[in-house]
Amino acid sequence: MSTVGILGGGQLARMLALAGAPLGVRFLIVDSAADACAGQVAPLLKADWRDFDALDAFAKRIDVATFDFENVPADTAAWLAERVCVFPEPPALAATQDRLIEKTLFRELGIDTPAFAAVDSYQDLQRALAEIGSPAVLKTRRLGYDGKGQFRIKSSADIDVAWQALGGVPLILEAWIAFEREVSLIAVRGRNGEFSTYPLVQNWHADGILSASLAPAPHAQALIEPATRHARAIAEHLDYVGAFALELFVKDGRLLGNEMAPRVHNSGHWTIEGAPCSQFENHVRAVLGLPLGDTSALGVSVMLNWIGELPAAQPVLAEPRAHWHDYGKSPRAGRKVGHATLCADSATEMRARLARVARALGREAQVAPVVATLVDR
Amino acid sequence: MSTVGILGGGQLARMLALAGAPLGVRFLIVDSAADACAGQVAPLLKADWRDFDALDAFAKRIDVATFDFENVPADTAAWLAERVCVFPEPPALAATQDRLIEKTLFRELGIDTPAFAAVDSYQDLQRALAEIGSPAVLKTRRLGYDGKGQFRIKSSADIDVAWQALGGVPLILEAWIAFEREVSLIAVRGRNGEFSTYPLVQNWHADGILSASLAPAPHAQALIEPATRHARAIAEHLDYVGAFALELFVKDGRLLGNEMAPRVHNSGHWTIEGAPCSQFENHVRAVLGLPLGDTSALGVSVMLNWIGELPAAQPVLAEPRAHWHDYGKSPRAGRKVGHATLCADSATEMRARLARVARALGREAQVAPVVATLVDR
Repeated sequence: MSTVGILGGGQLARMLALAGAPLGVRFLIVDSAADACAGQVAPLLKADWRDFDALDAFAKRIDVATFDFENVPADTAAWLAERVCVFPEPPALAATQDRLIEKTLFRELGIDTPAFAAVDSYQDLQRALAEIGSPAVLKTRRLGYDGKGQFRIKSSADIDVAWQALGGVPLILEAWIAFEREVSLIAVRGRNGEFSTYPLVQNWHADGILSASLAPAPHAQALIEPATRHARAIAEHLDYVGAFALELFVKDGRLLGNEMAPRVHNSGHWTIEGAPCSQFENHVRAVLGLPLGDTSALGVSVMLNWIGELPAAQPVLAEPRAHWHDYGKSPRAGRKVGHATLCADSATEMRARLARVARALGREAQVAPVVATLVDR
Repeated sequence: MSTVGILGGGQLARMLALAGAPLGVRFLIVDSAADACAGQVAPLLKADWRDFDALDAFAKRIDVATFDFENVPADTAAWLAERVCVFPEPPALAATQDRLIEKTLFRELGIDTPAFAAVDSYQDLQRALAEIGSPAVLKTRRLGYDGKGQFRIKSSADIDVAWQALGGVPLILEAWIAFEREVSLIAVRGRNGEFSTYPLVQNWHADGILSASLAPAPHAQALIEPATRHARAIAEHLDYVGAFALELFVKDGRLLGNEMAPRVHNSGHWTIEGAPCSQFENHVRAVLGLPLGDTSALGVSVMLNWIGELPAAQPVLAEPRAHWHDYGKSPRAGRKVGHATLCADSATEMRARLARVARALGREAQVAPVVATLVDR
C-alpha cells in the first residue's frame, strides 16, 4: 500500500485524500496550519516549508510527494526530490510559478497569449504600457492566485497607483482581453506519458475568484482540438506528471493562453460526480504510475463555488443529482469554503435544477450566466 | 459541523466516513482493534464494547452514534443511547440481532418467510426437522454473518453432527429454499420518517459470502412493489432511522424474507458510483436528520466482491467506468478485503466490460451468473 505525501493541506489535498482512499492509498499531509482542513480526513504533519527536519521525517514516511499548493518554494521541492519521488517534478513546478516564464513558454509552444512584457521598474512599466496599450493588467510574476497580486490599469493615468500597489517585486504587464468567454482544460499525464483530457469547461469569475463552471462547455467543438494540442504540448515539454489545468480566453473565436495551474483545479471539481474518474483520483493514479481513469462527461455538470461562507445546504441536498461539498473550513471573506455540483442528463433538466437551487439560496446572479449559456444538444 | 460516532471500524465505517466527509461531517470510530481499517480515514478510539469509560469519552465527542457492526451488544447500545442520539435506536437494532425475533416480525408484518422453528434443545431439533422437513438450515439465532453459525442439514442423518456443531446456544431451524434467485432491497429512512429505496439488486453468494451484485435486478418489475412495501413496513414498525438491507429469496416468483441487516450493506456498495447518492451518504444524511438523496440507478452496475485477498487492480483501473475499492485490510481467508464496481449504460456494454475484467483476472466463474442474467431493456 502506497503513501502519498501532499504539500499543503487545503481543500485540494482533502479531495485528493478522499478520492485516493478507495484505491487503498494512504496519505500524509504537511501544512504549517495545525487545523488545515485536509487533516480532517488524513494524518497531518504541521511544518513550515523551511523546516527540513520535519520534511525529512515526512519524506521517510511517504512513497511519492505531490502538491495541493503550487507556490511551495522551488528549493523546498528540489530538496525533497533528492529524497523521494516528487510529481510534478520541481522543474515543471518552477516553470509555472512565474507568469513571465509561463507565458514565454506558451509562445514558444505556439500557444497565442495576450501581449505581455516584463516589468522590473517604473520605467519598464511606462514603456510596456505604451507598447501594449490600455486597458492592461499589471501582475506579480509569482505568488498570485484568485485575482491576488493584480492591478487593472484602465489608462496611463493609473500608472502611479498601480506601481504603488505592486512595485518592488518582479512584475508582468499583460494586455487586458475583452474575451467572449473563459474556458479551461483539465488534463492528466501519467508517469509513462499516458495523456488524457476532460471535456472543455466554461468558467465564470467574480472578483477574480471562480464563481461557476459548466461542463462540457457548449459550442466548443472548434476549441477542443487546439486546447488539447496546447495542453499536450505543455505537458510533454515539461515532462509533467499529474493533473493540471490550462486556463484559456476565447477571443474572436480563438484561444489565448492565460495560465497553467500545476495541480488539480477548481474548474475540475465537477469531475467528482460528473465524470467516471475524477481529476483527484486521476492525479493520484498518475503520481503512483497507475493507469489513468475514464475522463468522459456523464451528462451536463455545473459547479457553483461557495466563497466566504456556505449558503444553506438544504436546497442542494433536497435536489436530485445535486452534490454538496463543505471543506470543513471556517468562514472568511474571499475564502473558498465549499462548492456544489449539479448534474443532469440535459440542458433542460439542468435549467430547472439550477433555477430551484438559485431561487432557494438567493443565488440567481451567480447562476444567470450559466443558464444563459446552456444549450440543448 | 456535526460529528458522527461509528461503533465498529471495518470497511462499512470506512465508506461511511469517506461519503460523509464532503458534507462537512466529522467522524469518530470506536473499535477494539487499533488497526481497524476505518482508522485510515477518520480518528479511531480503541476500546472494547464493555469499556464504559472509553465509551463515555466517545459519547462526549460526538453528536450522534451509529453502527458499522450490528452485533454491538444491545446493552452497550442502550447505555450509549442514554448519553447521545443513537440511530438506528437500540430496540430496532435488537430486533434484528436475533433471527427468531426477526423472522417472527416478518410474519407479523405479512412478509412470507421460509418455515422456521426455535431450537433450544436436541429434542427441539428433532421435532423441528420432522415438522419442516429436510433439507433445512440450522442457524444460531445471534451473531451470525457471512454464512458463519450455519449448518445445512441434508437429511435426518445429519442431526447429530449439526447439534455437535452449533448446539448449546439458542438456535433456529429454517427450511432450505431452492430459490430461483436472491435479491435485496437497500432502503433508507430519515429521522422525520422520509423513506426511500434503491432499485432492487440481484445477488450471488459463494461459500455463504456475497460474491456479486447486479443492479437494477432484471425482470424484477413484479417484485419491486412488494419488496418496497415490506421494507417500509419493517422500517415503520421499528421506527428505524438509517440505511438497511432487506434480503429476500425469490421462489416460484414470490418473495420470502430471509433477513434484515440494520446498516449499510455489501449488496449496496454499487450505489457509490451507480446512484447519485450512495447508501453511505444517505445513511449519514438520515442519522443527522438531513434530506435524503437521490436513490435512482445511473445505468447498470455490477459489484464484484474480493474475498481473502485482492486480485490485480490494473485490469479494473484500465477499464472505463470501473471503480476499485481496496479497504486497506490485510489479506485473510474469508475476509472481505475490497470490491470493484463496473457501471455501464447498457447490458451489452456491461457484458463486454465484465468479459474483459473477468478474463484478465481469471474470474470467469464469479462473473458468469451475472452475465447470464443481464438483459437488454
